[in-house]
Amino acid sequence: MKKLVTRRELLTLIAATGTSSAVLGASAAIGLIPDTQVSNPQIPPIDAANRPIVAILGAGISGLTVAYELKKAGYECVILEAAPKAGGRVKTLRSGDIIDEVGNPQLVEFDDEPHMYFNAGAARIPSSHRNILHYCKELGVELEVFINENKETWYQDDAMLGGKRVKNIQFTTSARGFMAEILAKNFDRHALDQPLSEYEAEALLGAMRSFGDLSEGDLYKGSFRAGYRSGGFIDHGVQKDIIALSELLKSRFMRSALNANEGDTGPILFQAVGGMDKIVDGFVRQLEDKIYYNVIVSSVQLAADKVNITYESGGSKYLLEADYCFNCIPTHLMAGIDNNFPPEYIKAMSYPRRGTAYKSAFQTKTRFWEKEDIYGGISWTNQPMRQIWYPTHGMHKEKGVILSAYNYADPLHFTRLSQEDRLESVIRQGEKLHADYRQQVEKGVTVAWHRMNHMLGCSARWGRGDDMPQEVESLYRTLQQPAGGRHYAIGDQVSMHSAWQESAVLSAHWAINHMVERQASTGNLPAQKL
Amino acid sequence: MKKLVTRRELLTLIAATGTSSAVLGASAAIGLIPDTQVSNPQIPPIDAANRPIVAILGAGISGLTVAYELKKAGYECVILEAAPKAGGRVKTLRSGDIIDEVGNPQLVEFDDEPHMYFNAGAARIPSSHRNILHYCKELGVELEVFINENKETWYQDDAMLGGKRVKNIQFTTSARGFMAEILAKNFDRHALDQPLSEYEAEALLGAMRSFGDLSEGDLYKGSFRAGYRSGGFIDHGVQKDIIALSELLKSRFMRSALNANEGDTGPILFQAVGGMDKIVDGFVRQLEDKIYYNVIVSSVQLAADKVNITYESGGSKYLLEADYCFNCIPTHLMAGIDNNFPPEYIKAMSYPRRGTAYKSAFQTKTRFWEKEDIYGGISWTNQPMRQIWYPTHGMHKEKGVILSAYNYADPLHFTRLSQEDRLESVIRQGEKLHADYRQQVEKGVTVAWHRMNHMLGCSARWGRGDDMPQEVESLYRTLQQPAGGRHYAIGDQVSMHSAWQESAVLSAHWAINHMVERQASTGNLPAQKL
Repeated sequence: MKKLVTRRELLTLIAATGTSSAVLGASAAIGLIPDTQVSNPQIPPIDAANRPIVAILGAGISGLTVAYELKKAGYECVILEAAPKAGGRVKTLRSGDIIDEVGNPQLVEFDDEPHMYFNAGAARIPSSHRNILHYCKELGVELEVFINENKETWYQDDAMLGGKRVKNIQFTTSARGFMAEILAKNFDRHALDQPLSEYEAEALLGAMRSFGDLSEGDLYKGSFRAGYRSGGFIDHGVQKDIIALSELLKSRFMRSALNANEGDTGPILFQAVGGMDKIVDGFVRQLEDKIYYNVIVSSVQLAADKVNITYESGGSKYLLEADYCFNCIPTHLMAGIDNNFPPEYIKAMSYPRRGTAYKSAFQTKTRFWEKEDIYGGISWTNQPMRQIWYPTHGMHKEKGVILSAYNYADPLHFTRLSQEDRLESVIRQGEKLHADYRQQVEKGVTVAWHRMNHMLGCSARWGRGDDMPQEVESLYRTLQQPAGGRHYAIGDQVSMHSAWQESAVLSAHWAINHMVERQASTGNLPAQKL
Repeated sequence: MKKLVTRRELLTLIAATGTSSAVLGASAAIGLIPDTQVSNPQIPPIDAANRPIVAILGAGISGLTVAYELKKAGYECVILEAAPKAGGRVKTLRSGDIIDEVGNPQLVEFDDEPHMYFNAGAARIPSSHRNILHYCKELGVELEVFINENKETWYQDDAMLGGKRVKNIQFTTSARGFMAEILAKNFDRHALDQPLSEYEAEALLGAMRSFGDLSEGDLYKGSFRAGYRSGGFIDHGVQKDIIALSELLKSRFMRSALNANEGDTGPILFQAVGGMDKIVDGFVRQLEDKIYYNVIVSSVQLAADKVNITYESGGSKYLLEADYCFNCIPTHLMAGIDNNFPPEYIKAMSYPRRGTAYKSAFQTKTRFWEKEDIYGGISWTNQPMRQIWYPTHGMHKEKGVILSAYNYADPLHFTRLSQEDRLESVIRQGEKLHADYRQQVEKGVTVAWHRMNHMLGCSARWGRGDDMPQEVESLYRTLQQPAGGRHYAIGDQVSMHSAWQESAVLSAHWAINHMVERQASTGNLPAQKL
């Protein structure tokens, strides 16, 4: 049996932590380090007599951003959109909408009320995403807080507590308590000598005790932080039961529950009031006559000082000779459209794996979750449906629309099934979280992003910047540069942080800025009259 | 030098944790344990020809609740309120309002716009407070999410980093990382034998690594959970700096930052749209002609089957002979009003220490915090002002009203100063959090609850139920019972969890239910005609 580190070793170890990286000490200029700034492009105004023609392929957030900014600067923008609606994966489903899954079209039959919608794609805006927030402000899109983390929601794991659901707050309070207990018990309170001062050691121990709400003797004996089982206001509070460490450890959620809301979903989150497509509407209001819907691009050809786009609309073919092209068509689809791009560019377009995301939603007959103190937030299960999202909006109204499945790991689990079987499967799984689920839900829809028309995939997976191999980065940089100097691939698909609107906006800004700088350095402004 | 526990001891210890209290294992009926239910009283209807007269002293939330419920059941309710407005400590300040601090009256001069208000008293409703939420729903009070925890806010401690402010997300990410590093490093990954199984030990280690986002070798080397210093979307992300453990340990916030939002503020929180007094308005709409304002109670006398209340209004004295009296006048003030209560009852009234709470607020010329990605939430400092609350409402508008001080530990620090000096002091302290604070703030107000007219104190401090000595509980129970069988002291002041609207409501419900049960058991229904 090996021994643990000695007390002195531990203290030395503690004192040594944090010297391995850039560490802020008393002398550091903390608070002066800039975060991401709004990268709003500065575009020199164009001579009205010589307005460049810009073709924008796809009316997703990146395409809309390019069109909005270049139109303001006087460019002549034309947006060609394959679908009958703008927005791409910013998609809100309401009564009467059609879900255009290839081979499985669905009609949305939710009640026709303002709060009865489902954000099937983009659903959250972190407060750190300054650029998309900037457009929300500029375009007058009203925002409200989106609740992601809610300690009143449920965890359910077949391996834990015999599969019974448990409140997030009971799971996390117990997990914190036991973790703190283990930490604190390893702390010998005598011999608090070098190299950690007595004050420091006490501070660390104090932090551990506070973290876990430990009782005397550094034992975790439960905590009112998990709420009251009964009483607490007029009479003595009775504690909720502790979940045994041995049960906690049976669940994979032990590895995620204490950090489920770090990272992208750590800051305050927002949603657009009335549905995320209100952001799209904000752009479209500024671009109304520039967007052509139901248009299929059939060829993109790089030419000298031009990009020639052939497209079909209403049964006819057209040719658009553009000075610039900004293209947010999913690159794996674009690679299959007739083009004369360089081979390395096509390789880059085809490289990133496309994410798969399967979501489903139900209308509910009552807001049954509010009776369990749940207002917004996510319940988690280890079943294939993974999550239930309770709506943040429509509080205290009669009905709501919930997300009833969100699976991004095993898309075939649901999509190989018929529509009816998909919904039945989700309901059966949901019953482990809410016993009367079957009686509560109706009018289900499913959105399999890897099978949606004009998409056939979710976000491009280049990997985050910090784990991108050199050969992958090389392809990424190839795709980022304009093909033939005038064709820009844009969208969150050309980012190191895909699946966020912020990335789409920043990709658009990057391309615009690149074009502007290139014009400035080469003096090569397009001069063709319309 | 003492040794730490051996590995075997540690594993035994880990396996033993959680056996000291009620612990849920696989067989427990988790999820079936009821939380606090809505305690809506069931009141038998009263014969319209024999309607009991109920005097309600004070139009705080408890008084309003009693009046609303008893009026529905047919009782004849009269509410006597000393102030010109209902609500008690549910107080929203807007343009033109008077702050009635004894000796320091102030006029509120905020801009006259719907989002320019300050909730000077009650400000947050946890989603677990079912009874006040029930009234919000029933009275049509629109609610919105209140943001309490926001990782984009600041910590500032004169002892840490030379007093420089640091983002909450940098503080907490570093603190979690180092705590996890210490835990994980004490984990000998060989010899994972009994009594913790290899799977369990790996699960625990995995949890610690996830918790801290540890790098290889179980070192904390910073984390993107703290956000990006630069890049991250289109280019590689650059990590924010780590805060050294030695700096973290200098700050008292190490003992609170990782659990600042456990307990009462752990669930989702709400505020009433447009100001918390919209809840008061909801009650008042139902009681309009029953509330008499600017009325001073001068005597409360228990009599046979009656409570006789003498009060002054408009310069005249009146006598109200009531069948029941529900009294939410602060008990330390009520003890000084002429009465014939039993000595033990008066002792109970005088017992609890009154909380002191000093708040101040400013109108701001811009929403400068939004430029720092802050939308709602609290910045913390160890200076006497303690906190800055950024408004959750009015996002992206021009101006806002911030809470600029919230001191409940040392009320004299500010209140011994002149109004001008109070504000100057708060500004000087605020400059450590926001360098241009002085240029941003204007039209300051201060609310010292221990000096407010008709209050002269904040919430009663009986202590929470779990730390209430027997002799204190005895006084508490004396006050809870009706004096003379017909005079009920009510309010959060008669609860084990004061300073919450939920407690006021539950106190009112307790008293109503007690009266109803007593009537049922004694047949002693008041029968006097009006």
